[in-house]
Amino acid sequence: MRAILPDGSARELPAGSTAGDVAASIGPGLAKAAVAAVVDGEIVDLMRPLEGEVQLSILTDRDPRALEVLRHSAAHVLATAVRAVRPGAGIGFGPAIEEGFYYDFEVDEPFTPEDLATFEAEMARVIEEDQPFERRRVTREEARELFSDDPLKLERLEEFDEDEVITVYQNGPFLDLCRGPHVPSTGRLANYRLLSAAGAYWRGDERRQMLQRIYGTAFFKQKDLDTHLDRLEEAKKRDHRTIGRELGLFSTDQRVGAGMILWHPRGAVLRMEIENYERELILRHGYDLVYTPHVVSERLFEISGHLENFAENMFGAMEVEGARYRPKPMNCPGHIAIYQAGLHSYRDLPIRMAEFGTVYRYERSGVLHGMLRVRGFTQDDAHVFCTGDQVAGEIERLLDLVDEMLGTFGYPYTIELATRPEKALGTDEEWDDAIKVLADTLDARGVAYDIDEGGGAFYGPKLDFKLIDAIGRKWQGPTVQLDFNLPERFGLEYVGEDNERHRPFMLHRVLVGSMERFVGGLIEHYAGAFPVWLAPEQVRVLPVSEQWAESAGELVDMLKSRGIRAELSDRETLGYRIRDAEMMKVPYMAVVGEREAEAGTVAVRRRGGGRKQEVMDRGAFADLVREQIDSRALEVGGADGDR
Amino acid sequence: MRAILPDGSARELPAGSTAGDVAASIGPGLAKAAVAAVVDGEIVDLMRPLEGEVQLSILTDRDPRALEVLRHSAAHVLATAVRAVRPGAGIGFGPAIEEGFYYDFEVDEPFTPEDLATFEAEMARVIEEDQPFERRRVTREEARELFSDDPLKLERLEEFDEDEVITVYQNGPFLDLCRGPHVPSTGRLANYRLLSAAGAYWRGDERRQMLQRIYGTAFFKQKDLDTHLDRLEEAKKRDHRTIGRELGLFSTDQRVGAGMILWHPRGAVLRMEIENYERELILRHGYDLVYTPHVVSERLFEISGHLENFAENMFGAMEVEGARYRPKPMNCPGHIAIYQAGLHSYRDLPIRMAEFGTVYRYERSGVLHGMLRVRGFTQDDAHVFCTGDQVAGEIERLLDLVDEMLGTFGYPYTIELATRPEKALGTDEEWDDAIKVLADTLDARGVAYDIDEGGGAFYGPKLDFKLIDAIGRKWQGPTVQLDFNLPERFGLEYVGEDNERHRPFMLHRVLVGSMERFVGGLIEHYAGAFPVWLAPEQVRVLPVSEQWAESAGELVDMLKSRGIRAELSDRETLGYRIRDAEMMKVPYMAVVGEREAEAGTVAVRRRGGGRKQEVMDRGAFADLVREQIDSRALEVGGADGDR
Repeated sequence: MRAILPDGSARELPAGSTAGDVAASIGPGLAKAAVAAVVDGEIVDLMRPLEGEVQLSILTDRDPRALEVLRHSAAHVLATAVRAVRPGAGIGFGPAIEEGFYYDFEVDEPFTPEDLATFEAEMARVIEEDQPFERRRVTREEARELFSDDPLKLERLEEFDEDEVITVYQNGPFLDLCRGPHVPSTGRLANYRLLSAAGAYWRGDERRQMLQRIYGTAFFKQKDLDTHLDRLEEAKKRDHRTIGRELGLFSTDQRVGAGMILWHPRGAVLRMEIENYERELILRHGYDLVYTPHVVSERLFEISGHLENFAENMFGAMEVEGARYRPKPMNCPGHIAIYQAGLHSYRDLPIRMAEFGTVYRYERSGVLHGMLRVRGFTQDDAHVFCTGDQVAGEIERLLDLVDEMLGTFGYPYTIELATRPEKALGTDEEWDDAIKVLADTLDARGVAYDIDEGGGAFYGPKLDFKLIDAIGRKWQGPTVQLDFNLPERFGLEYVGEDNERHRPFMLHRVLVGSMERFVGGLIEHYAGAFPVWLAPEQVRVLPVSEQWAESAGELVDMLKSRGIRAELSDRETLGYRIRDAEMMKVPYMAVVGEREAEAGTVAVRRRGGGRKQEVMDRGAFADLVREQIDSRALEVGGADGDR
Repeated sequence: MRAILPDGSARELPAGSTAGDVAASIGPGLAKAAVAAVVDGEIVDLMRPLEGEVQLSILTDRDPRALEVLRHSAAHVLATAVRAVRPGAGIGFGPAIEEGFYYDFEVDEPFTPEDLATFEAEMARVIEEDQPFERRRVTREEARELFSDDPLKLERLEEFDEDEVITVYQNGPFLDLCRGPHVPSTGRLANYRLLSAAGAYWRGDERRQMLQRIYGTAFFKQKDLDTHLDRLEEAKKRDHRTIGRELGLFSTDQRVGAGMILWHPRGAVLRMEIENYERELILRHGYDLVYTPHVVSERLFEISGHLENFAENMFGAMEVEGARYRPKPMNCPGHIAIYQAGLHSYRDLPIRMAEFGTVYRYERSGVLHGMLRVRGFTQDDAHVFCTGDQVAGEIERLLDLVDEMLGTFGYPYTIELATRPEKALGTDEEWDDAIKVLADTLDARGVAYDIDEGGGAFYGPKLDFKLIDAIGRKWQGPTVQLDFNLPERFGLEYVGEDNERHRPFMLHRVLVGSMERFVGGLIEHYAGAFPVWLAPEQVRVLPVSEQWAESAGELVDMLKSRGIRAELSDRETLGYRIRDAEMMKVPYMAVVGEREAEAGTVAVRRRGGGRKQEVMDRGAFADLVREQIDSRALEVGGADGDR
């Protein structure tokens, strides 16, 4: 066989040699670092015998694709261990996922944390044995025989096409129906951890049986595993569901429906502040507001094509006097209907319509997750209708808007430019032109961005902004999307300078995206310790004792009259009340004792400032808080006590 | 027969005497003014023969119930006239309605304005003939015979119960299946007008045939008819649908769905300003905001009882993973779910939750009307959970809130206290107590109110506020409603000072009610000439010619930076642009010519001030507009030119 390497050089080895052999022929260092190989564009095992001439590159542990192979092998090691401890456990699927791997088992009882510890120990034994992963092609009949005791595997087997290649992988006693690839042997796995177990429906289908899913993760280096576990620990502390409950921000209720968020008063303040801020921001950036209904005739989604392409994500239909209505999954058709209510001249463009539009989309109950994955969410959705000449200017304007908005919340961000996917509407020229406009605008600003090759929607290219949160995680952020499809489908028009009818360009854009997801993310980003302008309660006023309650009440009233969210806390002991204010992450505690009551001052503690307190004039304190609110300061300022 | 009169006196007349005879026996004045009579609580014809002892009062033309009788007779006169001109016309129903009467006819072609004129002339002839109205009791068989050519009447006839009394009324050649009562003869009708004709489904059912409905009105006095016609003329000029289109405020779109409002940018500004104002207002009045979903599980409405009692007004159900979901017709159950997410102490009460909650209710397409009657509307809905002791204080607070809110929009208002209906939940004592609290609170403030006897909901008494608009029409306004039902159905609780669980009181209240109806009403109230704070465009800046466009542009930017909605208008001739600004009812025109550009001033025209203009310093002009906005002034102030 002949291997053409990435640098163009070639290596000849006997037919049936493996990628592992090629790596060894290059050097012992590479042989050791090798995890898998890319052969003619496909990732394969190092042990796969090769024939003829192939393009070949070796994947070492520095390649993210190698990590995926390692994690997939880790899932098999987990299943090997579970089968050793629980011989009767049925096996489902066991893939690598974004941050690790999982394996689904059919067992009578949910797994306990003790079970996970046992399995982890057993995995160490399997690794110790360094069992090689062996790949075999089998016929359908052979496979049926091999998995005759594994009904879930048999079910999967029936879905293979007649002429599809069926492969199995074996390590030690464990055999799995699997496409691979895998690391050469179980000994390659060293740094791993089982994280949790949870019920998961077979094939994600809530009508099928509940399996028990074990999540784990694995890394090549201990350091990377440690960093990851630390981050998980930190993320757990920041879990928006826990903080949301503790701070009284939101809840869900089965009687209301899964994936439907109830915004409690404190959470509603957060949302209101964000909406007020964004409304002010976008009016300043030249947008118009509109309001459109949440329940609309299906006719709109027939025209838009959503009914054809998006129906499985839509709520079902209701009949009204012979017409079918649905909760809207998107705001665009409503905005288009407003555009089409009148005739537009080129002089009216660009038209920028924005709405806080609540949409409803069907998601399986199994994937719902707090505020981050829901069935009802409010998009800060806008659509720009403009001429071709105006597209670049509009992108420029959007980049300004995104930058200002994300800066306000303290999010650094990255940008991806998603290009034409295989199946796409519009001509090559249209795509090239549109992508060039996006790229040129980014380049002209000197902004770094990645290309997401083929990642655009079928109807146009887009810019995707990813937020980076306080612990380094990436979140879905703003998107800006060109649309070649809807203007055509709805027959949008404007009258040009030439008095002829033209088709406008249409841009979709969101900033926060889903208000629910954004606020869920903000809770985790700030770990519930919101900047003063967002804090549901900005000042908690604490009289030292009952005697000073009146003076404290006057302070509350004065602060409220300055538009500051202040609350009086005058029950229980002072110590208890201080701890409670700390737990509720109120930015300022304003303590009023004898001295303060008499002097008309206040002793101010800043969140994060511990026991330090500064005695301030009450007016100066109100000014400080107002300044924090008006400037939307990210950190709680002032009152350091050591000034 | 013996008639006991309202003053307790009795009159004896021969058996078979009529109420008309009784009136005549009292005096010729009363006999002349008499229209109908109330006999033992039932309104009857003056011509009805009476037997035995009866409670009797005479209805004269000063009684609103007499007007209803007159209008019902007018409908018969109309039908008499139509049948005379169009002998084949089928007849449907012809009742008196709030402001007049109508009659439905089955004819091949819609009526034209010329037809109405012909019918009106024919009505005059029927009146001239002074045909007596004669009442006859008939058997079902006789009735079938009498109406054998009137299929709609035959259909109605089949719905009578076996033992129901069937009566017909005849005047001249016209016979109708009718309960009455009527005026003695067609000659009593003098001041009437046919107003319009429109298609109307038989029995309001869009699956049945379309009839042609003729609307008319009638009064006892010519003066009252004239006033009414003037008001109709004025109302027509103020029609929110016409003004809404002219000012670009809103539209509907069959593709989106009937009764679903699309708020265009200029209409959305109105709504946003109202929402911002009300949000600020209610936060100041001690409310908390919440947000709840629009599409919720039916389970919620099973518990609330809406599914049982309100289903015909609800949109249908969608299936989601085996559960049924519906668009919410009410916000209350969502707010209750938030209340129930935690345990509440008496110290947490009152809790006041407010939401701009968009609800969806089914209305027949035939009754939809612009923004005033729609299928999707946003309620400024709030619910107060409180202890029994707190109810009076909460009512007090609500009266303040309503008064402040309605004053801001310049609406005088009246109050109705609606009491226990026949079918009602709760004990007599609970009702009496609750009504006493409402009445005492109103009395203590010295506020006038009417009692709407039996007008409460089955679940509690309420206060209804009626707005009086610029042309004297009454509109549905705020309502405050006590609820004995939902706290029970949901099992609401709070922990009292005694450490026991108690049931809280619950109040529903809206201020604008439906945002759509309120804004529709505001458009008519202001005839599109909104106060500065609400005006979608507050200042239109007009350079006298192209030369001064730059200086005018600077003025626009300066005004915008002060948060003023200013637009530049620099196309077409100045005359054209001034007329356009007048048509769009922009409160201020700011004209910039040579003198203004050079002096840095502006020539200001005030809406309603005609050609008067005042040259002002630009800063002073911005201050003036801001002052108008900040004070939410009802009239456009300043710049009178004659100062």
